[in-house]
Amino acid sequence: MADEITETSQTVAAGQLRAFIERIERLEEEKQTIADDIKDVFAEAKGTGFDTKALRTIIRLRKKDQAERQEEEAILDLYKAALGME
Amino acid sequence: MADEITETSQTVAAGQLRAFIERIERLEEEKQTIADDIKDVFAEAKGTGFDTKALRTIIRLRKKDQAERQEEEAILDLYKAALGME
Amino acid sequence: MADEITETSQTVAAGQLRAFIERIERLEEEKQTIADDIKDVFAEAKGTGFDTKALRTIIRLRKKDQAERQEEEAILDLYKAALGME
Amino acid sequence: MADEITETSQTVAAGQLRAFIERIERLEEEKQTIADDIKDVFAEAKGTGFDTKALRTIIRLRKKDQAERQEEEAILDLYKAALGME
Repeated sequence: MADEITETSQTVAAGQLRAFIERIERLEEEKQTIADDIKDVFAEAKGTGFDTKALRTIIRLRKKDQAERQEEEAILDLYKAALGME
Repeated sequence: MADEITETSQTVAAGQLRAFIERIERLEEEKQTIADDIKDVFAEAKGTGFDTKALRTIIRLRKKDQAERQEEEAILDLYKAALGME
Repeated sequence: MADEITETSQTVAAGQLRAFIERIERLEEEKQTIADDIKDVFAEAKGTGFDTKALRTIIRLRKKDQAERQEEEAILDLYKAALGME
Repeated sequence: MADEITETSQTVAAGQLRAFIERIERLEEEKQTIADDIKDVFAEAKGTGFDTKALRTIIRLRKKDQAERQEEEAILDLYKAALGME
């Protein structure tokens, strides 16, 4: 039981706890590396003259199917017209 | 100094600490009440037949001035055309 | 029906739409004012020498009941002990 | 220049635009896969009997160095004592 710690009537398998935590930490590190890569691609696109805000919107829109997107845009255009937003 | 607590060579004015915390808690409660009110208005608008997603977009767009908004939309339309997104 | 706008076979009551939007915008403004007030109280507390990070933690902890909080702290202490975090 | 699209006096290199967007989309997909993996490890830890909330706190605390963490805990304990939070 050298690997077990008892306190307030609870026992925890220290080795198993550490293994879970280290697995999560490694995955979080990988996730951060990819997040940094994404940031770099946006920076590169910006350096080439692209508008990153519009890029983000395009990427968000591409996640929807065409019919869904067109319907959303139709409703939005209707509301804009009603409010005189040209 | 009955109102002071000392520990690890630090002293804290308990009354003053409590006063700050209670002021913040009261304000957070008021903020939550307003957040609930906003939710209720959206629910009411939805009940009347409005699309809440489009309402949110309209509210976001109205925070920008017209020239800024039109320029953003022009860039977005340009990108959509380039990608064949109709 | 001067107040109605029709497009893509849909009709929207412009006056009603505008009323909902303006109600939400007013509430959002109030909410922002309170958010700014909260920020000001934290700044004032900081100016008096309080640690704002600890204040935030205290406020978060006060939302839980004592038994719940004590149980969470007991589990956390157990894990810390298992990992040798003193 | 079959690959260029002109509108509102702006030109955009469609191929380059598409390449940037597809690179970002691939990276976002990889990031999502890792986020799902992290979720799975937490679920596995929970299935083994660990408290995921405490795991998250431990992971957050491990990002700080020991001195920083101990100082934060000392301040927090001081405030808790001042407020009678045991």
